[in-house]
Amino acid sequence: MRDFLPADKARRERVLSVIRDTFRAHGFDEIETPVMEDSDRLHAGLGGDNEKLAFAVMKRGLTSDDLASSSEPLDLADLGLRFDLTVPLARFYASHRAELPAVFRAIQIAPVWRAERPQKGRYRQFVQCDIDIIGESGPIAEVELITATAATVAALGIGGASIRLNDRRLLTSALTLLGFPANVHDAVLITIDKLDKIGHDGVIAELRERAFPEEPVAALKAFFCRPATSHRLPFGEDAIRARLPEGVDAGAVTALAAIGLAVNEVAGDIVQYDPWLVRGMGYYTGAIFEVVHPDFGYSLGGGGRYDGMIGRFLGTDVPAAGFSLGFERIVDLAQLPDTSDADALALVHDADVPPARLAALQAEFIAQGRRVRLERKPRNIAPLLAQLAASGFAQFAYVGASSVASELEFRAIEA
Amino acid sequence: MRDFLPADKARRERVLSVIRDTFRAHGFDEIETPVMEDSDRLHAGLGGDNEKLAFAVMKRGLTSDDLASSSEPLDLADLGLRFDLTVPLARFYASHRAELPAVFRAIQIAPVWRAERPQKGRYRQFVQCDIDIIGESGPIAEVELITATAATVAALGIGGASIRLNDRRLLTSALTLLGFPANVHDAVLITIDKLDKIGHDGVIAELRERAFPEEPVAALKAFFCRPATSHRLPFGEDAIRARLPEGVDAGAVTALAAIGLAVNEVAGDIVQYDPWLVRGMGYYTGAIFEVVHPDFGYSLGGGGRYDGMIGRFLGTDVPAAGFSLGFERIVDLAQLPDTSDADALALVHDADVPPARLAALQAEFIAQGRRVRLERKPRNIAPLLAQLAASGFAQFAYVGASSVASELEFRAIEA
Repeated sequence: MRDFLPADKARRERVLSVIRDTFRAHGFDEIETPVMEDSDRLHAGLGGDNEKLAFAVMKRGLTSDDLASSSEPLDLADLGLRFDLTVPLARFYASHRAELPAVFRAIQIAPVWRAERPQKGRYRQFVQCDIDIIGESGPIAEVELITATAATVAALGIGGASIRLNDRRLLTSALTLLGFPANVHDAVLITIDKLDKIGHDGVIAELRERAFPEEPVAALKAFFCRPATSHRLPFGEDAIRARLPEGVDAGAVTALAAIGLAVNEVAGDIVQYDPWLVRGMGYYTGAIFEVVHPDFGYSLGGGGRYDGMIGRFLGTDVPAAGFSLGFERIVDLAQLPDTSDADALALVHDADVPPARLAALQAEFIAQGRRVRLERKPRNIAPLLAQLAASGFAQFAYVGASSVASELEFRAIEA
Repeated sequence: MRDFLPADKARRERVLSVIRDTFRAHGFDEIETPVMEDSDRLHAGLGGDNEKLAFAVMKRGLTSDDLASSSEPLDLADLGLRFDLTVPLARFYASHRAELPAVFRAIQIAPVWRAERPQKGRYRQFVQCDIDIIGESGPIAEVELITATAATVAALGIGGASIRLNDRRLLTSALTLLGFPANVHDAVLITIDKLDKIGHDGVIAELRERAFPEEPVAALKAFFCRPATSHRLPFGEDAIRARLPEGVDAGAVTALAAIGLAVNEVAGDIVQYDPWLVRGMGYYTGAIFEVVHPDFGYSLGGGGRYDGMIGRFLGTDVPAAGFSLGFERIVDLAQLPDTSDADALALVHDADVPPARLAALQAEFIAQGRRVRLERKPRNIAPLLAQLAASGFAQFAYVGASSVASELEFRAIEA
């Protein structure tokens, strides 16, 4: 968990505001949920491994008898900090469905928490930027999600990013056709999911080590390919079929091609077909996607269709799909135009200037639309000017007890 | 704890952005700290009664032996959710002092948590908007804080609010002169702090019930006065002295008059002297203030000078003062100009329009700076239009498979 100093915080707020505005322009509406959810909901099996990382929040007023009779720490907590924004969204939708549009497009920009051991690039508190479309079963949902995400990445000036696209149904269908029995699909996918880390040969070696039947493993090897970001696989039904065993799920091929072709037409070939993209979460039921960047070994965000999940909270199934951007990775890559605060003024005053005079001068310049900081004159002005420059202040003037605004002499602060 | 639906969330974000911009214009810089602090810090005696309301967060990996051998639930938690933004600021300043300006003006706009029993107007998660000035001992700090707060209240269109101002040193000095021994001051102030709730007679009655010596209680009665918002006490050294026993702390009178006069000159007589304003927190050492509104029995925010607190974390004392606005109260009162989203368009399409066509049309209008939502054409258009109006969409057009942007016929959506 980190503190953010003024320069970092200002940058984060600017990046958040570009993300929020781009999502909103695409017709999404922002919502907010509390940071804590009931423990039962957080541990309902929808969060995969992340459930184990939920910080538990203590029920208050426990007696020592309660403690002594409890065998599991989790029994003592009825709340927990959310580990993602998808479980809260499903709970939110189930609670408020009657007040929401038939097709609901949600923005959530908010922190989540995971009780991980601190390591480079992993934080225990971090911000996610999610968009979700609930109530739309057609491929237009995926097209909107990917288009809005691609537009956001472009608005942030992040060059070179692309989006990998696949469909869980094609993965399952391909594994079946290759000869893997259905009961080992999940286990095989766990290994295939390591493709980026251990490579094709590594995956095949691990599958053999784990003693899956040799014949399907050898067959898989023949179909293995992962498009590098520099080598994009073309989209279209034929291009998809060419990468998979004959006879794969025809409906999934059509839907996936429709998504990929539509996005590429609008967003300049940003999407590539990735036959072996897995995405860890078990709740995905259709298209899956992730944003990758050549400079990074991990994805900048990802998502997919999860038609079964809302039903876990609501009782009836509602189609849904979402895309989540990892803000902490995005914020480092964003290249926003420099907004040097040219209007920001510092009024540097002697100790003898009455507060009323200073406040009046400040109010006068603020009324002109400027940002104004009052600073007591130090013995040595240089460090103060350096700090003002770092805070984005462009000009300063000395102020005395009888100064009037129109007669102040402003000088530039050299950065 | 509450969910915020799109209309509420949009309003909250707009109000937050006015607050943030006004504070920034006054030269303050935004920072952010993690929502959790170490338990030790949260329970260091700086949070008053609020410390008891801190949600405790479980240390992970506890064994049942740990549980059985622990007599206090708090022993099991090494973290807690912050109950205010002042303790985190003091910790932040102590950690980062070397990287911060000599006089540091901080904005914190962030949620805090208190494990209260739910009741009207009280939430377990709520947002506070704090500004603090660390490193300035002169009255200009209070003037800046109150001026920035008054400007914020004005920018939010909240009419009728005023700011009560007092000084802890004058309270102590007056109680001494009235004949209360120093060791009962805190106890007497707890009763005086109930003035808004129980009135002058109620306070005197309670002091008598609690068996404080009759002579000073009777003397206090003669000095009692609380300015109603409609009856503002004038400011100035004489006006202050006229309300207090003869011989009160002269330095405090001078400083308080300087603050009140300066703010009233700049911000249109918004400040009134309140000789019996107490503010609950024990850490205040000088000026104290709160924002009141005639429609509400509680304050909209408050603050004061707390010169001793930073030293608790840093080891050396640093002067500091802060003002905290209660966002949940402010957001209901704010009167912002209506921003009907005149540029927001809905494209209503039949099921047969290809996703690529829809995405291309949407991208074209977004490029014109519009907000664009795609909507599948329902059997009955009326409920959809009502919902679009509620979401701020002003126009819609029907889109077919061969539509081009320039030929779409947009119609107004009646709210």
